[in-house]
Amino acid sequence: MEGDIAEMGKFIGAGLATIGLGGAGIGVGHVAGNFLAGALRNPSAAPGQMATLFVGIAFAEALGIFSFLIALLLMFAV
Amino acid sequence: MEGDIAEMGKFIGAGLATIGLGGAGIGVGHVAGNFLAGALRNPSAAPGQMATLFVGIAFAEALGIFSFLIALLLMFAV
Amino acid sequence: MEGDIAEMGKFIGAGLATIGLGGAGIGVGHVAGNFLAGALRNPSAAPGQMATLFVGIAFAEALGIFSFLIALLLMFAV
Amino acid sequence: MEGDIAEMGKFIGAGLATIGLGGAGIGVGHVAGNFLAGALRNPSAAPGQMATLFVGIAFAEALGIFSFLIALLLMFAV
Amino acid sequence: MEGDIAEMGKFIGAGLATIGLGGAGIGVGHVAGNFLAGALRNPSAAPGQMATLFVGIAFAEALGIFSFLIALLLMFAV
Repeated sequence: MEGDIAEMGKFIGAGLATIGLGGAGIGVGHVAGNFLAGALRNPSAAPGQMATLFVGIAFAEALGIFSFLIALLLMFAV
Repeated sequence: MEGDIAEMGKFIGAGLATIGLGGAGIGVGHVAGNFLAGALRNPSAAPGQMATLFVGIAFAEALGIFSFLIALLLMFAV
Repeated sequence: MEGDIAEMGKFIGAGLATIGLGGAGIGVGHVAGNFLAGALRNPSAAPGQMATLFVGIAFAEALGIFSFLIALLLMFAV
Repeated sequence: MEGDIAEMGKFIGAGLATIGLGGAGIGVGHVAGNFLAGALRNPSAAPGQMATLFVGIAFAEALGIFSFLIALLLMFAV
Repeated sequence: MEGDIAEMGKFIGAGLATIGLGGAGIGVGHVAGNFLAGALRNPSAAPGQMATLFVGIAFAEALGIFSFLIALLLMFAV
């Protein structure tokens, strides 16, 4: 058995870092799903809440991007 | 026992990276599911929300594609 | 104790890759479940949303197929 | 300590592969559960949605079958 | 096999720290999703609840940022 055990930790860590991407995916789905459910019940109000939709998606997506960043840092930087 | 332990870490990491794909799958399902629930209650409003449906799917799917990218990078690039 | 530890990593990784299949399964279930809930409340609108149903299923299923691909790659390609 | 460590990885991987079966089970349950909730509210519409019910179950079940296939491959083929 | 086992622990720990990011993503999605569902049902009340929306997002996001901080500390500071 050869190889660097710290190297192994980096790759397993990068894989684990996708848990954050998955959670952010669930969150984004919840924001967009509830917007669509509401917009189809009351279409005339949808344009006025478009900005809030993107605020909600952006905050949830940001947490996924941070996880992606951790995965990239683990693979290429540390 | 032989083999490179860093190699092992890559393969376990690639497997773990599907957690992100799973979460994105739940998110995409939530977006499309809520669209369908709303569109069947008020079919006349559905075409007007089609664009938002694809925006929501795209943002959730993107997080899954990022996870897939991490899995491919772990298997073939690092 | 003999055997290749990288080989072991491939098999554990392939098993872990089904997490993505599981998440996609939840997503597909959410899409089809909400379609059925809506279609039974308003059956006359169901044919018009059939295309969206398959779009939603396809996007969620794709994330599961990507996970399946990762499992196959880990078992037979890398 | 004797035994082949790659052999060990196969068996752990096959066990982990049931996570996909579990997720697909949640998905199938969601499809059939929502069908029943709707069919009991509006029984006259149920026969017309029977085909969609089986389409939804089939797509979610397929993801579980793929996981089952990975488990079988890990145990008997690789 | 060479390498520092404490180093390995840091990298696996940094990957695990994204579980917090994922959970925060689900939380942010729940806050923004329920705001949108309510705002589309009663649009005239939405501006008055905007502050509460950002309070809710901020508290959930903060927990994700703390997890991100732990991941960064594990990779670069300890």
